[in-house]
Amino acid sequence: MIKILETDTGSMARNAIMSLPHGDVKTPAFMPVGTAGTVKGMFHTSLEEMGYELILGNTYHLYLRPGMEVIKNAGSLHDFTTWDRNYLTDSGGFQVFSLASRRKISEEGVRFSSHIDGSYHTFTPENVVETQETLRSDIQMVLDVCTAPGISKREAEEALKTTIAWARRAKKRWDNRAEGYEGKLFSIVQGNFYKDLRKRSVEEIIDLDTPGIAIGGLSVGETKDEFYEYLAYTAELLPKEKPHYVMGIGTPDYILEAVEYGIDIFDCVYPTRIARNGTVFTRDGLIALKNQKFTLDDLPIDPTCQCNTCKRYSRSYLRHLFKAGEMLGPMLASEHNIHFLAQFMQEIRESISTGSFMQYKKNFIEKYYGDKS
Amino acid sequence: MIKILETDTGSMARNAIMSLPHGDVKTPAFMPVGTAGTVKGMFHTSLEEMGYELILGNTYHLYLRPGMEVIKNAGSLHDFTTWDRNYLTDSGGFQVFSLASRRKISEEGVRFSSHIDGSYHTFTPENVVETQETLRSDIQMVLDVCTAPGISKREAEEALKTTIAWARRAKKRWDNRAEGYEGKLFSIVQGNFYKDLRKRSVEEIIDLDTPGIAIGGLSVGETKDEFYEYLAYTAELLPKEKPHYVMGIGTPDYILEAVEYGIDIFDCVYPTRIARNGTVFTRDGLIALKNQKFTLDDLPIDPTCQCNTCKRYSRSYLRHLFKAGEMLGPMLASEHNIHFLAQFMQEIRESISTGSFMQYKKNFIEKYYGDKS
Repeated sequence: MIKILETDTGSMARNAIMSLPHGDVKTPAFMPVGTAGTVKGMFHTSLEEMGYELILGNTYHLYLRPGMEVIKNAGSLHDFTTWDRNYLTDSGGFQVFSLASRRKISEEGVRFSSHIDGSYHTFTPENVVETQETLRSDIQMVLDVCTAPGISKREAEEALKTTIAWARRAKKRWDNRAEGYEGKLFSIVQGNFYKDLRKRSVEEIIDLDTPGIAIGGLSVGETKDEFYEYLAYTAELLPKEKPHYVMGIGTPDYILEAVEYGIDIFDCVYPTRIARNGTVFTRDGLIALKNQKFTLDDLPIDPTCQCNTCKRYSRSYLRHLFKAGEMLGPMLASEHNIHFLAQFMQEIRESISTGSFMQYKKNFIEKYYGDKS
Repeated sequence: MIKILETDTGSMARNAIMSLPHGDVKTPAFMPVGTAGTVKGMFHTSLEEMGYELILGNTYHLYLRPGMEVIKNAGSLHDFTTWDRNYLTDSGGFQVFSLASRRKISEEGVRFSSHIDGSYHTFTPENVVETQETLRSDIQMVLDVCTAPGISKREAEEALKTTIAWARRAKKRWDNRAEGYEGKLFSIVQGNFYKDLRKRSVEEIIDLDTPGIAIGGLSVGETKDEFYEYLAYTAELLPKEKPHYVMGIGTPDYILEAVEYGIDIFDCVYPTRIARNGTVFTRDGLIALKNQKFTLDDLPIDPTCQCNTCKRYSRSYLRHLFKAGEMLGPMLASEHNIHFLAQFMQEIRESISTGSFMQYKKNFIEKYYGDKS
């Protein structure tokens, strides 16, 4: 399902085409997060115009609201939301562990209470595959047990054991998917911050032979150095002929690090979340639009940017919108941040194409983080 | 400044072109309200695509935030907000009476405390002309004293006396406007719900000879019958060769009534305010998108509507967005409601053109209000 087109000369970075039911995806690609079937504050036409070919939906949220009956009635998540390019959906496991209450893991699956209305539900490896089949997800994820840094090796091993058993059951259920449903199943490497467990997790996954592989359990509160160390360690173990996904990363430094280690796709709520608070990307790093110093600033957010926000609006006006609590502020800042990442990924792919990714990375980081990196 | 093109045969309705510094405006026209320099939840490009030629800004809000220094720095309200078609700004008087606290009217003007930070300010007939000159408003309004229904005739007369004196001072200040500033001053008919006071107010205004005339003090809490009665009574007194404006109306029935009596422009926050709450216009009346009955409804809001929302999204998806508190809900509902009124006004102008406005009005009301009208 992934065709590697070019490999960087100084790193593991690669340009590829990932073939999915709703069209090809040029990778490395960032996926904006559409939690409840909408990338917050953005029209679908904007995402289309920016060239996004793959966005993310959250199974946990969609399962609880609007619920599968509504999606099924529309035909698919695509039909329901009018996004006719690809969707990757997660398994819901991460949200069960971070949002739901009174959760209880058993061999069968995980029982939890909804953060919306307190109602009880159970996710099993099998039923989350079914749910994602109902969504008609182009990439679907296996249910896993995500753990935080700092737990004991015994706990990490226990969680990994469950994750492995669940992945096998998910794969089996996915092998029996309905005719005509072509979504790809990705398994997830876990093992917390223990290298031997990470290695064992990868070996099990290779054995399982799912169409794609995600590295989970990173960007969960560990230090930057730990992230880099475990990303590199895990990525180097992955089979090169499969697509690689790292979950939950959206800052330029983490994206660049992931690309360097041959990761093809990643997602994060970060760009839209900071946008709603008035923080936006520029080539010279983040700026907070509410800052007093932009009161009379006639310049666009980033004078080199070609997005609809930068082509038209000044920092002074944007600051005003945020100070006045106007919806247009978050709308324009989200548009900018999501466009910024589309442009960033395109430049990354171009640098891989010319074998100069490491130079691009160095230049970008120097300009973006300055003395801070 | 207004060229009457066509007059309806069965009513006072008229099609005209109003020439303003930022281009011609086809009337009758509805003006979306951009309180703080943004029509809430809408991109300026959408308003442009829908053909809006004139929108409203609120002097009170803009004066307090971002403040005149910021607007002056940008050049004009148009430059600041990137809207290069026309702006009508109000005088701020209505907001001083409805939003500000500790207000005190004197002969000089009105002193009040800001609803944002409690700071004290004084609006005078002269300084609100100056403020609107700084905004480079295409139509600016005189400072007036707006009164609620139910006050005594003595109180109404007192308020009218002040309004008349202020209008004279405003006109004098506007006559001395800066070279190159071409914005038009509109005076405002007051007189509460006393016909002789309304008549006296109109006579004073005719004497004052401002480029345009607004009917104020309507849609302030009176009954529908009172509104109709005082609208008709006042409108019939107005000189036909001047543009007529009724402030604060945005429901189809009030708009149709105003057009019937020769009103050219009107504004209201109503269409965007109800949209943010999930209530949208259809040919068959308002619908509340949060309603349970739309859970599985695949239809667009209004199957006859050509707006970007109706061309793409189902009621089921829109309901979900509102239930989930997603920004895209208000964005799409605002887009629809503002488009609906653009289309409505175009049909009104077409019906005037063919001398069939009263028939159009009857048909629209019957379908829209059903048995309720």
